[in-house]
Amino acid sequence: MINVVKIGGNVIDNPDALRAFVDGFSRLAGPKILVHGGGKEATRLSAAMGLTTRMVNGRRVTDRDTIDVVTMVYAGLINKRIVSALQAVGCDAIGLTGADGDSLKACRRPPVEMEIVSEGKTAKEMVDFGFVGDIPACGVNVRFISMLLNSGLAPVFCAICYDGRDTLLNCNADSVAAAVAVGASQIGPTRLTYCFEKPGVLTDVNDDSSVIPVVTAESFESLRVSGVVAAGMLPKVQNALKSVEDGVAEVRICGSDMLMTPGGTTIR
Amino acid sequence: MINVVKIGGNVIDNPDALRAFVDGFSRLAGPKILVHGGGKEATRLSAAMGLTTRMVNGRRVTDRDTIDVVTMVYAGLINKRIVSALQAVGCDAIGLTGADGDSLKACRRPPVEMEIVSEGKTAKEMVDFGFVGDIPACGVNVRFISMLLNSGLAPVFCAICYDGRDTLLNCNADSVAAAVAVGASQIGPTRLTYCFEKPGVLTDVNDDSSVIPVVTAESFESLRVSGVVAAGMLPKVQNALKSVEDGVAEVRICGSDMLMTPGGTTIR
Repeated sequence: MINVVKIGGNVIDNPDALRAFVDGFSRLAGPKILVHGGGKEATRLSAAMGLTTRMVNGRRVTDRDTIDVVTMVYAGLINKRIVSALQAVGCDAIGLTGADGDSLKACRRPPVEMEIVSEGKTAKEMVDFGFVGDIPACGVNVRFISMLLNSGLAPVFCAICYDGRDTLLNCNADSVAAAVAVGASQIGPTRLTYCFEKPGVLTDVNDDSSVIPVVTAESFESLRVSGVVAAGMLPKVQNALKSVEDGVAEVRICGSDMLMTPGGTTIR
Repeated sequence: MINVVKIGGNVIDNPDALRAFVDGFSRLAGPKILVHGGGKEATRLSAAMGLTTRMVNGRRVTDRDTIDVVTMVYAGLINKRIVSALQAVGCDAIGLTGADGDSLKACRRPPVEMEIVSEGKTAKEMVDFGFVGDIPACGVNVRFISMLLNSGLAPVFCAICYDGRDTLLNCNADSVAAAVAVGASQIGPTRLTYCFEKPGVLTDVNDDSSVIPVVTAESFESLRVSGVVAAGMLPKVQNALKSVEDGVAEVRICGSDMLMTPGGTTIR
């Protein structure tokens, strides 16, 4: 089984959680790939550099300065911090953006028409979110990833991809993990694990013991309609169901310290 | 012939020079490796973040904040800018620090006793230059580099190495290039090219037509004694001569736009 594991900002920003995660990841047997998100460092650096972030309807616009900052923080600081922490526990990791080895090609998201509310008035406007992208099915360089895995290396991807030419694009780390797992499924059966700060998908967000053990396409529909799975969890579970549809053997959503233990939510 | 090419800050900071260089590098036939230095971006970012740089006798102390900044700028921004520019012209590049694939292990430079002049008085003091390192002969992972070259990839190293555990170390890019070239010589005959802003080693630093075509260990001695090779050029030529001694077939010092043209200074 190939393991593709995704960690987010909550793990990255917490040294103890990151240490526990790195330890668990290094113990996973067989071929493995890590995908990591951002964390608060990019926001801190932007503020220190005096950059202002333009938000449209709650979504960030990634302009030229912002893509430079996230490239520095995600591909530089965080990626190399994780790679060296893995090397220190004997896991031969290699840090990558999508440009490295032409590994992950993304399509730049086209401008979209949005309703903007300003001074009490609603107006339609074409909004360009800038240097952000999405990875199409053909965007994963399976041959390259296979070569690294065959050499005993553990690829560590940040969510910076590129357009196949010379432009870096900031992507959603959950989606990058899904794309990588779907690509890896062409090499062999693949398990995709989303690690986050909760022990799984919960029926009660304030009760860590309320983990739903299994979600399927059928059970998801009723969980969604009844409002049990809502807010931030919805896209994660939808992403997971889509990955299973696209060939990933199993998706698991669990705590970042649970890689070597059973539990969490399995999506299949 | 394996080509190992080094570029410094003057090329990196100049978009036209970088474009011309990237074009030339992509046209080099056969296996090739790029090593790049820093540039002014790290200094700019440090200033923007309000970091103060401690200098001792003209040498920079790389403290915890500084190693974070150079990791962001060298391994993040500059490395990925070069990698994507190479991909755009059809060169399948992969960006690396020494931690990636355990490729370059360095030894942290131990504190040294230095004479510090302060308020007219001279005192001896043990100075710790912080997170800086040097690569020993055994520090280059030749098997890993060979694997990448055999896969048709062009490794692009920044000068951030690591101690083999979890600590990143800032290294001198000229020395990293020399270490990589000596390591590559175990795979096959290797040419090391130092690209910089001058067309070669000059007898008159203000006259670009005064290039010395060949320097050998014998001719270097008289060039040094007569003061023709002096200041910043001395360590570069000494590094080059040492590389030849250590098995590199040929070292060339030339302009960053001269990769595909003859000329420059050959050291053998």
